[in-house]
Amino acid sequence: MGSTLRRYDPGRRDRIIDACLDVIAETGVAGTSHRKVAEAANVPLGSMTYHFAGMSDLLHAAFSRFAQKVSEQFEQRMAAAYDTDSAKQAVADAITHVVLSNPRDLVLTHELYTLAARDPAYRDITNAWMARSRRTLERYFDPPTARMLDALVEGLSIHRALDNEPQDEAIVTAAVERITVQNAGGATS
Amino acid sequence: MGSTLRRYDPGRRDRIIDACLDVIAETGVAGTSHRKVAEAANVPLGSMTYHFAGMSDLLHAAFSRFAQKVSEQFEQRMAAAYDTDSAKQAVADAITHVVLSNPRDLVLTHELYTLAARDPAYRDITNAWMARSRRTLERYFDPPTARMLDALVEGLSIHRALDNEPQDEAIVTAAVERITVQNAGGATS
Repeated sequence: MGSTLRRYDPGRRDRIIDACLDVIAETGVAGTSHRKVAEAANVPLGSMTYHFAGMSDLLHAAFSRFAQKVSEQFEQRMAAAYDTDSAKQAVADAITHVVLSNPRDLVLTHELYTLAARDPAYRDITNAWMARSRRTLERYFDPPTARMLDALVEGLSIHRALDNEPQDEAIVTAAVERITVQNAGGATS
Repeated sequence: MGSTLRRYDPGRRDRIIDACLDVIAETGVAGTSHRKVAEAANVPLGSMTYHFAGMSDLLHAAFSRFAQKVSEQFEQRMAAAYDTDSAKQAVADAITHVVLSNPRDLVLTHELYTLAARDPAYRDITNAWMARSRRTLERYFDPPTARMLDALVEGLSIHRALDNEPQDEAIVTAAVERITVQNAGGATS
């Protein structure tokens, strides 16, 4: 453990984290082992314990990266909004077309939620994710509205993803309109 | 398989389904096996295949029962409402104190969502659950409002459960008020 070669492979830790997300997406958290992740990352099994204190440390790093990536995508999408109305439209579009639309993101999100439901030690990740989404929304909406809107995005996206009937886009637009009706404005509005 | 004794144990199928939910709550869907469920239900391993075509049939029966039980609790809670205002209050109370408050229900809900995220064959369960929640809400709210409110309950309950900070009850009340602001009334209003 800790040979000079390993220390000087700066991309290895990153590759392990990405591989861990691949393994979780494929087999679920419960089926994820050091061995499977090491194989997927193409690193020696021994290097896993050099980079991570244990499975929970690795899962923490993997889901933190996943949440950060999804948050960044939401930020980029919202960055195109130039006023409150275009921000509402961007949120409705995100619900209808983006959030949880990708089967991999859908599975990884629910794997994280299941893990955090079982073990509060993972709720710092979900807490940070929600806080970041709200900060993004606070560019256009007051803090209470941003909080309500963030929960609405969650609920409508989950209901679309887990339904076997198509979602009515008019309902999404109307829901966003209603929840933001008393919006007092955000940082850029 | 199919001995007379087994046929005349009318409670056995029920006990297996309940035991399956216990095993899922304890070890997750991924760790659930016929053997573990048979042990938890105190039935011979062979009787599992008599009552269920396979693990997916058993999981289907177990999560259908779970969704039905949670739906009934929500119905009972909403049944106390006598007009639109008391219905709004009952929904806000459910978000703040009831939905996903029980650690077992929280875990089972996310296990079901993860399963349905991976395999659309389980989305008939989530679809039926959502449909039933909306029918409950439609006693007090018009159908589009019931749909928006159901998604809001989902999002706010998940965000409360997966956060490590307490939820602001005033935000919940205000969100319910806003989403129902254009309510045209339901069956009993």
